[in-house]
Amino acid sequence: MKMKAKEISEAFRACQQFITKELEEWDGGALFREDAWEREEGGGGYTRTVKNGNIIEKGGVAFSAVHGKVSAAMRKQLQLEGDSFYATGVSIVLHPRHPLHPIIHMNVRYFEIDEHTYWFGGGIDLTPHYINDSLAAEFHKDLKKINDKYHPDFYQKFKDWADDYFFLPHRNETRGIGGVFFDHQNESSGISKEQLFSFCEELALSFPSIYKKQVDLQVFHNPSEKEKQWQLHRRSRYVEFNLLHDRGTKFGIYSNGRTESILMSMPPMASWEYEFEPYEDVNAIQTQKKLLKGINWIVKNNQ
Amino acid sequence: MKMKAKEISEAFRACQQFITKELEEWDGGALFREDAWEREEGGGGYTRTVKNGNIIEKGGVAFSAVHGKVSAAMRKQLQLEGDSFYATGVSIVLHPRHPLHPIIHMNVRYFEIDEHTYWFGGGIDLTPHYINDSLAAEFHKDLKKINDKYHPDFYQKFKDWADDYFFLPHRNETRGIGGVFFDHQNESSGISKEQLFSFCEELALSFPSIYKKQVDLQVFHNPSEKEKQWQLHRRSRYVEFNLLHDRGTKFGIYSNGRTESILMSMPPMASWEYEFEPYEDVNAIQTQKKLLKGINWIVKNNQ
Repeated sequence: MKMKAKEISEAFRACQQFITKELEEWDGGALFREDAWEREEGGGGYTRTVKNGNIIEKGGVAFSAVHGKVSAAMRKQLQLEGDSFYATGVSIVLHPRHPLHPIIHMNVRYFEIDEHTYWFGGGIDLTPHYINDSLAAEFHKDLKKINDKYHPDFYQKFKDWADDYFFLPHRNETRGIGGVFFDHQNESSGISKEQLFSFCEELALSFPSIYKKQVDLQVFHNPSEKEKQWQLHRRSRYVEFNLLHDRGTKFGIYSNGRTESILMSMPPMASWEYEFEPYEDVNAIQTQKKLLKGINWIVKNNQ
Repeated sequence: MKMKAKEISEAFRACQQFITKELEEWDGGALFREDAWEREEGGGGYTRTVKNGNIIEKGGVAFSAVHGKVSAAMRKQLQLEGDSFYATGVSIVLHPRHPLHPIIHMNVRYFEIDEHTYWFGGGIDLTPHYINDSLAAEFHKDLKKINDKYHPDFYQKFKDWADDYFFLPHRNETRGIGGVFFDHQNESSGISKEQLFSFCEELALSFPSIYKKQVDLQVFHNPSEKEKQWQLHRRSRYVEFNLLHDRGTKFGIYSNGRTESILMSMPPMASWEYEFEPYEDVNAIQTQKKLLKGINWIVKNNQ
């Protein structure tokens, strides 16, 4: 007997609760508020958001489980077949206060058309305002470890997928240092539905420790004006990716999702300057050169 | 003998030159820089941008004339038929420093597939951070006057079109107080190609005086923190519209246009806050209630 959608959604809700509790304890100043909402056409969710924490300036950990008819807009924009759907998932975006701390995104989701047509998707990717090679390697090692437990091909396949997905073609740059990304995974992935679910759940549950490491291993100093300006600039690229390219955002908007929950991914503040260049900020210039697909962060840092 | 694409593009270039000269003289502190660029697949443009003026904080007046093959991406994303195209136009977005001054956008463009298949498009629309009913009426009266010279139906038709076009479905609100918007206009509009061109040219040339009036008639005071915050919030909605919905932005991105020229429409700074509400800012609350389609601003202000 295969896992039911309801079981999966309950487990995802539990992931949300675990993650927000961990983040609150760690940040010390960040208290999540929860908004429960219902979707007119079926289902709803719990959106947990936070602002003005010690580390997290703005963020959200959203859970939703929505269902209903596949609308004309969804069919067209999302190329969906079938009449009705069920979708559940957990989504996270955290924008830290400090320019040396990275923006992070995590999402796991389950989509079902009927008993035979279902898939999992998700991923974690990191967008450091300033790329630190050894922390980038740590991040990818953490992800590889989880992926390797489920299938020897997963890490490389999903890492490449993340490089392709978290990419801004109009800027010819990646969003950050990538991570893993996957979509439409079912039995044809080589593992069972139950194992796929466990993989998603483990990714979600590992989120707090993965992010904490990225922040805690960073040496702290008071940010300079140049660093703050660079952070505002990098955040504008984050906005561009999410509004121009991100499929999750599109799915939310076109399935008549809850806008404030979908756009909780937006940064607290972002700036655009025509032909902005980070003159004299050597670390920013270095970072700009590393926004490329296909970097093997783990090997790079061992050389 | 009908007007040729080259004549139209030369006239549009002259509009750009006129507009930037007028704005520089009026602002007093805004000097435009010009970047000439070429498009690999054919054509190019001159992008004029400005920052840190007395009134204009950030803005651009862009001219382009591009041509080439209709690519697969353009065919799919823009539903274009035909093999090759020629497109020329002038686009403006100005973000003023002061929250009481409105954001403004103007665009006129000409698109040609072949001798028999061509169209004009364009429009002007106003996005006041705070809506002032009498200035909104002035703006619409200015536009009506120009439209009425060319066709008795234009103003109402293009005003309704602007209400529909400059709309954020995911927010269920208009971008601002609208204006006029039109696309795919050729002889079937009821006027000749030459008259359509003159209409576009007159709209463009009237831009400086229309915008100056909106700023000069506004009573000046030093902006409060609340007003600045509201301005940053309204600008975030401007970003959302342009990246999620604007067809000009999409055309630019998918036709491999020059990203920095396309995204010169972005504000210098914008903020997102989860479920932001302008508590105690009565004028902001009033403005929020007026972000509706179908308001007859001219009549409203005479009642």
